[in-house]
Amino acid sequence: MLYGEYLQLEKILNAQRMLSQVHNLPVHDEHLFIVTHQAYELWFKQIIFELDSVRALFSSSEGLDESQTLDILKRLSRIVLILKLLVDQVMILETMTPLDFMEFRGYLCPASGFQSAQFRLIENILGMKQENRVRFNQHYSCVFGRDEEALAAIEKSEREPSLANLVERWLERTPGLEEDGFDFWGKYKCNVGALLQEQRDAAMKKDTESERAFNLADCEKKKAMFDTVLDEDIHNSLVQRGERRFTHKALQGAIMITFYRDEPRFNQPHQLLTLLMDIDSLITKWRYNHVLMVQRMIGSQHLGTGGSSGYQYLRSTLSDRYKVFLDLFNLSTFLLPRTYIPPLTSSMKSRLNTHWGSSNEALYC
Amino acid sequence: MLYGEYLQLEKILNAQRMLSQVHNLPVHDEHLFIVTHQAYELWFKQIIFELDSVRALFSSSEGLDESQTLDILKRLSRIVLILKLLVDQVMILETMTPLDFMEFRGYLCPASGFQSAQFRLIENILGMKQENRVRFNQHYSCVFGRDEEALAAIEKSEREPSLANLVERWLERTPGLEEDGFDFWGKYKCNVGALLQEQRDAAMKKDTESERAFNLADCEKKKAMFDTVLDEDIHNSLVQRGERRFTHKALQGAIMITFYRDEPRFNQPHQLLTLLMDIDSLITKWRYNHVLMVQRMIGSQHLGTGGSSGYQYLRSTLSDRYKVFLDLFNLSTFLLPRTYIPPLTSSMKSRLNTHWGSSNEALYC
Amino acid sequence: MLYGEYLQLEKILNAQRMLSQVHNLPVHDEHLFIVTHQAYELWFKQIIFELDSVRALFSSSEGLDESQTLDILKRLSRIVLILKLLVDQVMILETMTPLDFMEFRGYLCPASGFQSAQFRLIENILGMKQENRVRFNQHYSCVFGRDEEALAAIEKSEREPSLANLVERWLERTPGLEEDGFDFWGKYKCNVGALLQEQRDAAMKKDTESERAFNLADCEKKKAMFDTVLDEDIHNSLVQRGERRFTHKALQGAIMITFYRDEPRFNQPHQLLTLLMDIDSLITKWRYNHVLMVQRMIGSQHLGTGGSSGYQYLRSTLSDRYKVFLDLFNLSTFLLPRTYIPPLTSSMKSRLNTHWGSSNEALYC
Amino acid sequence: MLYGEYLQLEKILNAQRMLSQVHNLPVHDEHLFIVTHQAYELWFKQIIFELDSVRALFSSSEGLDESQTLDILKRLSRIVLILKLLVDQVMILETMTPLDFMEFRGYLCPASGFQSAQFRLIENILGMKQENRVRFNQHYSCVFGRDEEALAAIEKSEREPSLANLVERWLERTPGLEEDGFDFWGKYKCNVGALLQEQRDAAMKKDTESERAFNLADCEKKKAMFDTVLDEDIHNSLVQRGERRFTHKALQGAIMITFYRDEPRFNQPHQLLTLLMDIDSLITKWRYNHVLMVQRMIGSQHLGTGGSSGYQYLRSTLSDRYKVFLDLFNLSTFLLPRTYIPPLTSSMKSRLNTHWGSSNEALYC
Repeated sequence: MLYGEYLQLEKILNAQRMLSQVHNLPVHDEHLFIVTHQAYELWFKQIIFELDSVRALFSSSEGLDESQTLDILKRLSRIVLILKLLVDQVMILETMTPLDFMEFRGYLCPASGFQSAQFRLIENILGMKQENRVRFNQHYSCVFGRDEEALAAIEKSEREPSLANLVERWLERTPGLEEDGFDFWGKYKCNVGALLQEQRDAAMKKDTESERAFNLADCEKKKAMFDTVLDEDIHNSLVQRGERRFTHKALQGAIMITFYRDEPRFNQPHQLLTLLMDIDSLITKWRYNHVLMVQRMIGSQHLGTGGSSGYQYLRSTLSDRYKVFLDLFNLSTFLLPRTYIPPLTSSMKSRLNTHWGSSNEALYC
Repeated sequence: MLYGEYLQLEKILNAQRMLSQVHNLPVHDEHLFIVTHQAYELWFKQIIFELDSVRALFSSSEGLDESQTLDILKRLSRIVLILKLLVDQVMILETMTPLDFMEFRGYLCPASGFQSAQFRLIENILGMKQENRVRFNQHYSCVFGRDEEALAAIEKSEREPSLANLVERWLERTPGLEEDGFDFWGKYKCNVGALLQEQRDAAMKKDTESERAFNLADCEKKKAMFDTVLDEDIHNSLVQRGERRFTHKALQGAIMITFYRDEPRFNQPHQLLTLLMDIDSLITKWRYNHVLMVQRMIGSQHLGTGGSSGYQYLRSTLSDRYKVFLDLFNLSTFLLPRTYIPPLTSSMKSRLNTHWGSSNEALYC
Repeated sequence: MLYGEYLQLEKILNAQRMLSQVHNLPVHDEHLFIVTHQAYELWFKQIIFELDSVRALFSSSEGLDESQTLDILKRLSRIVLILKLLVDQVMILETMTPLDFMEFRGYLCPASGFQSAQFRLIENILGMKQENRVRFNQHYSCVFGRDEEALAAIEKSEREPSLANLVERWLERTPGLEEDGFDFWGKYKCNVGALLQEQRDAAMKKDTESERAFNLADCEKKKAMFDTVLDEDIHNSLVQRGERRFTHKALQGAIMITFYRDEPRFNQPHQLLTLLMDIDSLITKWRYNHVLMVQRMIGSQHLGTGGSSGYQYLRSTLSDRYKVFLDLFNLSTFLLPRTYIPPLTSSMKSRLNTHWGSSNEALYC
Repeated sequence: MLYGEYLQLEKILNAQRMLSQVHNLPVHDEHLFIVTHQAYELWFKQIIFELDSVRALFSSSEGLDESQTLDILKRLSRIVLILKLLVDQVMILETMTPLDFMEFRGYLCPASGFQSAQFRLIENILGMKQENRVRFNQHYSCVFGRDEEALAAIEKSEREPSLANLVERWLERTPGLEEDGFDFWGKYKCNVGALLQEQRDAAMKKDTESERAFNLADCEKKKAMFDTVLDEDIHNSLVQRGERRFTHKALQGAIMITFYRDEPRFNQPHQLLTLLMDIDSLITKWRYNHVLMVQRMIGSQHLGTGGSSGYQYLRSTLSDRYKVFLDLFNLSTFLLPRTYIPPLTSSMKSRLNTHWGSSNEALYC
């Protein structure tokens, strides 16, 4: 087995056919255009491979096998590194100038990474919902129309539980949420109330009427914001409107993990939530770098033949609607100062720590 | 002279006073917060130093001394590398979690790189106009109020010619624009007309009425777009509305350099225009990465006490209004297929090449 | 509190005194030289701050408090990100050309990051031993001679337990190493023996004498290699010669964690070992990039006045002697195929998993 | 034409066959191993494409067409960006652990990027000479033995003029080297003599005998170093020994361009020399990162079956012997303080500037 055979280089290195050359007007930079997009697709395949394996670990019938948490973290970290590379890769394509691009653009459909079947798959597997897409982006049959395999894979990805679904289900089971147990949410509600009351009291002690009014108004705004998470109906209507993602229960789990992340059992769950945000964040950075590159290549005011502007469309995918784990980004809104975090009961503390205490030994004392 | 004395490390390394420690509740991550921002400011100082030197080279009374073009390119390239570093640096600050941040946030004004006097200086020196800023960002006296020196520097930067002004003036003098000479603009107008006419003719030859109508409408859209640059009045009104930046003449120069960039005399001017776009692009990437980091830290829905949301404000600075060299990004809209680029006359060719021909020698034959 | 006051920018931004300017022959690039080194030093301070906090967590009198493992991982990850930034930062300084450097070099001592007191501190805190340094690098009094504070800090760092010492002590206590318990090392020895015997048997079955001889010789080499770790005396003599770092017991712990990293209790210890290697690896990459930059600036053949060549000296610090966690890099040598890894006994399995079983619940089932 | 057809994704995305899966023991990380190496090979192909085009521009029968200098610079800059990406890419592969690697390593030849035919091509096209390779690396037939096409391409690359050859020929024609003209080398020799004499005089004025002796010895060392470039015989013997690369004449050209880089005609030649160093430097950084990764995967002490250690071999390719443009790195050794740089005669000045003066106009006055 030679190196080249193992890597099937006869396929990889014979897949660069420049259309400009086919038309007998070779444009040097088309080669870069092809290779860059092929490198994207290679890495997309790797990302899908990792995401699928993470979904499989999450969705085993007996629940997440804890001995595989490390694998999940390692694979998500790897995706983060790959996405960083892809963000940097945009700069290489930027070395092609608009004038160069113009010379072979005509030979192509206005293809871009955003019309890649694999990119669509990544979005779906992560948990991008159809209804949150901009309308133009909801149906891709024009692009994938003839590629049955791609269409089938995309449809499958829309039916299967996404990573977001699986994480949601897992968050809902966060130990400590049971109302008849530690009842984290009951305690949280109570402490939010106390925090707001304290701020209201402080506002009332201000010297002037206008200061009092200003500070009270501020308290009301804060209360309104906390109500969006305390009141399940408001939360659900936000989910309906696409402004929030997780179920109410899952959001509770995420807040709880954030508060008690230093307890051994929550260490890795917390690392996991951070990695999910990193992935969302890097995908949006990649979109942004891509948008800037497109602006350079075709301008922000250019009107495609009979269609919307490519640039304007791409820009629209930068909105928060395209963030799968939006709720994690907004979690900071619902945090409490350390003194207001409900203290763990000793039984809860031991539940989150049992592995050290139960066997009467410290692991590395 | 010791290494530490030369670098004045007694200043640099004794400037980290954690307010949380002053309040006897030290928060580990405040140290990172301070150091990261200080590193930003150090590099901002270097960027200002380079930009000021580039402006000085551009604004010498006898016009740009050509023997310093290389220095200009080198210094702009250096700024590009520094900005790339600053974009990456954001990820380091992201290792601080919202819960950590919450613990010392109260001690600070909501200070951020966007309220840095030096960052404001960089924007002004590049050529950010006050009227293009979002209103909230137009006056900074609340932030710089007590820092007389900073205020004076900022005011000075608003009065002095910005880099954009100097580049504009330089572009206006692009050889070949003279109406009684090569008359680039006359030729360009003419060829745009021919291009549009050809497309109209092709449209008329379509078989069905609906195809004809569709294609003609497309031609009209294209014409409308070219009119925004061919008609000086439309151009000027776009400048008024903040949608375009350069004077009409300067824009002509930029288009001309783009077309004939391979002529030796336009090589470095073309590299210069590319570097200006790179700088604009990287500043906007930095803003974007910063916005995502702020979203993580304080959430996108958080309402500051009595003010607009930090996140929403920062997001607004991502718009095209904040691109100083917007016209260069949109240049691609006005390019022509190679066959429509006006051919150089032999005298123009030699003007852009004289250094090789005039002395009857090829430099490296 | 203004942004600039909080960051003490009056110190940070007034610490750039160009010696070339003092001598009335200002060299533009000296500003970059100063700022780049100051940025290094700022980040060095942050690295030291993080390393010291990690050492404190490791060295608490009651042993490592497990609820702080997450903090240790987060801080080491942060150091990794900072080091990546410093590696990239070298490219900025490379935009200075040798001719530029030559113009102000004369004003400086041949100061470099390698003569920085903080860099020396980082090496010592990590666990770089004096006897592994190249001789020229063992004593720094010539450089720090007048800076009492720096000298005191460096001496303190040589006396205190380094991170490597603390990690070593912690590895020695890896659960499962007890000879009267799981006795990992006994089992490991036994399985290495079986593996080698199997290979010897396979060698004996080869058809020709020369094949047999070749394969047997290969087995002997392997045995000799395993002996370096199985035989404590050989191991200790390698430590004496600076070719190995950890105590014999600690090395056993590292191998054990590597084998059973998927057991929940070993997840984070395994992440920790990986981060230590990342740090070592990035420091050596930084050294290498620095060496290449120095070669550009002063050449590889240049002889300093009356001294050894800067380039040659720097190159020597690239050897394995300068890797603090060398043993972790070489761990792969002592790994066994999966089928030869000693299976966990059920009691050992439960010890590494107790937190799930003991309370009769799966955390997220 | 669909996006996927254009990119021939059916080839690219169906070329990942995991041998571990073929053997019914799928190892998750083998997928990453394959994809990473395929991404390397894709980019190698792009680098070869760019290098070949640059060689073609250099080797046109009428000498380098100056109107294509910009293209050369753009393409070399692009290679620099690609190489930076490849350096970062190593970190992705490092997320695979040795234990994972061990599980499928047995299925492969010990293939690595260093045994890639394309990488060998890149080295040869740049100008890596066979005699400078370590012996083990001189013949590749064992690896490429069955791949006729690869072998033919490599043999061709050994016969054809390399980029280093073409650059060398081009440097030899640097205007100003003519002995009967500006005679740069005559002037340089003279000024080196004056510089050394001045230092000798200064040495003689020292107060004590020992100071005098020390300083004089230093002068002698400097003289010896300059002799290696002033004396053509010494230079040639260094070339023989593989310690220097360029012909004597080409080295003169490189020094001249470095001194007068600010003259318009030398701007781009100077940018070119810098880019060549960047490429050399990044390839060596990539080698280094690769070496560290291999050390992690298989250890530095591991002995391959019947062969030399992979790690030790790879380390040997880090030596200066593997730098194609070594002379450019060492150029700084032969620079002179600004006051010793021979002033341009007015005719030479005008030759390097004619394009501005001859037409009696400043380009952008």
